[in-house]
Amino acid sequence: METHGAYWNEQRETQSRPDREAGVLSLLQRQLHRVYEELPFYRRHYDSHDFHPRQVTCLEDFTRLVPVITKAMLREDQAETPPFGSYLGVPESEIARVHGSSGTTGVPTLYGISHRDWDHIADVMAQGFYTAGVRPTDRVQLATVFGMFIGGWGSLLGCERIGATAFPIGAGETERQLELMYRMGSTVLICTPTYALHMLERARSLGYDTAASPLRLGIFIGEPGAAIPGTREVLERGWGMTVRDLATTSEMTPFASNAECEQGRGVHVLQDQVWTEIVDKQDPNRSAPEGTSGGVVYTHLHRESQPMIRFASRDESHMSYEPCACGRTYPRLPNGVYGRLDDMMIIRGANVYPSQVQRSLLSVPGTGVEFVVVLERPDAMDEATVRVEHDPTISPADPRTFKDELAQAIKARLKNDTNVNFSVEVLDPETLERAVSKAKRVIDRRPSAFEEASS
Amino acid sequence: METHGAYWNEQRETQSRPDREAGVLSLLQRQLHRVYEELPFYRRHYDSHDFHPRQVTCLEDFTRLVPVITKAMLREDQAETPPFGSYLGVPESEIARVHGSSGTTGVPTLYGISHRDWDHIADVMAQGFYTAGVRPTDRVQLATVFGMFIGGWGSLLGCERIGATAFPIGAGETERQLELMYRMGSTVLICTPTYALHMLERARSLGYDTAASPLRLGIFIGEPGAAIPGTREVLERGWGMTVRDLATTSEMTPFASNAECEQGRGVHVLQDQVWTEIVDKQDPNRSAPEGTSGGVVYTHLHRESQPMIRFASRDESHMSYEPCACGRTYPRLPNGVYGRLDDMMIIRGANVYPSQVQRSLLSVPGTGVEFVVVLERPDAMDEATVRVEHDPTISPADPRTFKDELAQAIKARLKNDTNVNFSVEVLDPETLERAVSKAKRVIDRRPSAFEEASS
Repeated sequence: METHGAYWNEQRETQSRPDREAGVLSLLQRQLHRVYEELPFYRRHYDSHDFHPRQVTCLEDFTRLVPVITKAMLREDQAETPPFGSYLGVPESEIARVHGSSGTTGVPTLYGISHRDWDHIADVMAQGFYTAGVRPTDRVQLATVFGMFIGGWGSLLGCERIGATAFPIGAGETERQLELMYRMGSTVLICTPTYALHMLERARSLGYDTAASPLRLGIFIGEPGAAIPGTREVLERGWGMTVRDLATTSEMTPFASNAECEQGRGVHVLQDQVWTEIVDKQDPNRSAPEGTSGGVVYTHLHRESQPMIRFASRDESHMSYEPCACGRTYPRLPNGVYGRLDDMMIIRGANVYPSQVQRSLLSVPGTGVEFVVVLERPDAMDEATVRVEHDPTISPADPRTFKDELAQAIKARLKNDTNVNFSVEVLDPETLERAVSKAKRVIDRRPSAFEEASS
Repeated sequence: METHGAYWNEQRETQSRPDREAGVLSLLQRQLHRVYEELPFYRRHYDSHDFHPRQVTCLEDFTRLVPVITKAMLREDQAETPPFGSYLGVPESEIARVHGSSGTTGVPTLYGISHRDWDHIADVMAQGFYTAGVRPTDRVQLATVFGMFIGGWGSLLGCERIGATAFPIGAGETERQLELMYRMGSTVLICTPTYALHMLERARSLGYDTAASPLRLGIFIGEPGAAIPGTREVLERGWGMTVRDLATTSEMTPFASNAECEQGRGVHVLQDQVWTEIVDKQDPNRSAPEGTSGGVVYTHLHRESQPMIRFASRDESHMSYEPCACGRTYPRLPNGVYGRLDDMMIIRGANVYPSQVQRSLLSVPGTGVEFVVVLERPDAMDEATVRVEHDPTISPADPRTFKDELAQAIKARLKNDTNVNFSVEVLDPETLERAVSKAKRVIDRRPSAFEEASS
């Protein structure tokens, strides 16, 4: 085992911005030329936009001139050129791994990843998880689904490359999971924030002393929860551990190309791996100024198989170049990724993210962590109801009054934070269904919801 | 990628028996000395049996003198020395992977596997799956559970080492699984035989032309099904593929230390990896003569972490040294592992395996693949009922008569094959519950069943 100190790769992580960006530019140019020459998907797309790679002579050109790609385009291309699309980039025989998008809206798109990329991905995953605090001495419980979705697999790969002990038990079977966590003394937990909350609740009801758990670190993937202050506090206090956020999106594997350091001030963006731009929400060819919220556009600098060049992710975030005490010169997304633009609800014209509702709920004392938003349109107008459990540690003397008062407090907070009049129903603990992977926070029963949410 | 021809490792696979066994003896001696010197679990066990490693001067001594170990002993030792027992053999910091037994009878035992072992395991897994026919050009769909149980993980490791394309989709979500199998053109399927049967049934009901599936090879683990002629034929004809059997037991990882070659005449035993003995069912220190059925005792020749030395597995089999046309000089278990001694039912004093019942059922035309045996003892005597579905491709004109006649035919066949009078109920197709992993074939409702089946 190689030894590493504060950094996985000190040279890259502490490089000056100009030096890094000079390297990025030449990698971007190489990728652009390669995809234009070799991949019909990109050639057609660029030709139809009158774009040619030689036009890019600086990073600003890259943002201004290169047309973005979307999930819908990838899905369509795979339907035309099955199974991996006309952007595969390597012979099929060189594919090491096949995974796929979660495919919540139908046919999942397939990821084909070459042997060479898989090896490089392991190193970037290791860098991300090392940044988030995993060390070779750790015993890492991976309570993630191991199936189509690449989240758990990539995390495992990173922990293996670090040389930690990996315990990839999968999601579910929560009682056994807890018994083994305590018996083995797992020091790190990796899963979705939703599942970590569920495990916490179950552990308490089984009588575990959760604040004295063997866990010292929780790293959460697949959902924005770890970056939401209320959720983070519940998990940190509940499990007696530090919480770190990590991860972009599965198309952009190595998805650990952003990760939070020991300072806990938002995720560092590994700009020498996946070039990450914050752009105007209406115009992906215009940068958002530093600190301004915008859409996130990602580009693979190293992938040879299915390289994503300016992938418009529908993530929303803002970026900061303010120096970090950890010494890494990578910029940060100080609040992580707030939520997916395709999770966004439009309620009577207002834009509301489930993560925003979650943040508001957790700021009202007495509120539990499980909730769902139900959207209906009985007449002409949207009606939005938040159904939320109360904190299970509270046993109100007069439940009806307690629930009514809590509902009023939540309603006022939501109105204040989102400008939407929600109806609020406070429920008993353990009423709502629990998820072992990503939570479903929105039930949209309106006659015509979004045309098509991206999968 | 290294190139391999007919063999993964020609030198080892075609070595003469005396040469191989000379090597085995010295590895056994090394392991014995090491576990006696370093591992309290073995030291206590051997001392209490007045056994010392220096007594072993030949393979016959090894069988005659070394006391066996059992699952119950491992479980007890882990309870005393948590979490990995006093037979771990490496510092905990050197553990790469943690997995566990399925723990069907309670607390699972934990497997701790060192980095060095994990790398060696990959090579043996590759040898096993290469023997069974996997090649670098294959696209392998791993429809196995990825969790505590090591079956899927070891299979994945082997396919990765071979350089095949791995598609570790996990068990379950059968419709999506089928859609992707056809869309991607998976050439190899790895799962339990139970799940392969279930997928077949579902594929037919969804209208897939299963005999024209992209699969060319099915390798089945975790259950004895692939070695049962009736089951093998249903799978081979149903999917239009070749079926190969593989695998010992999870304690003995690399469990692919036996695998069937292209001759399809039972599994080759990789005697230079896991030394495998067939012993008298009553006396594990007495060899069963070649060709005689007995218990299977396994020994790790290379594991440094949790080495199993004379592990009495409760598997039953017989061995043959008859030469195989493939050129491998490893002996074979011509009928695979028939079943676990702990799956064995004792019905009015007769010993019956579920696999035996399965074989009998599949030899009666009109019988489906799903069944369960229910054992009861309403009075003093055991009553055994087989509940079995009929073949879904048959739509009988007079269902009642059809079922009565089929039940009579099955009853007669079972009486002939097992000497037990079973009651038989023929059910409609799709009546019994389906498993995505191992099937539960016996429901024992008798007041006192086995004292304790091993997990």
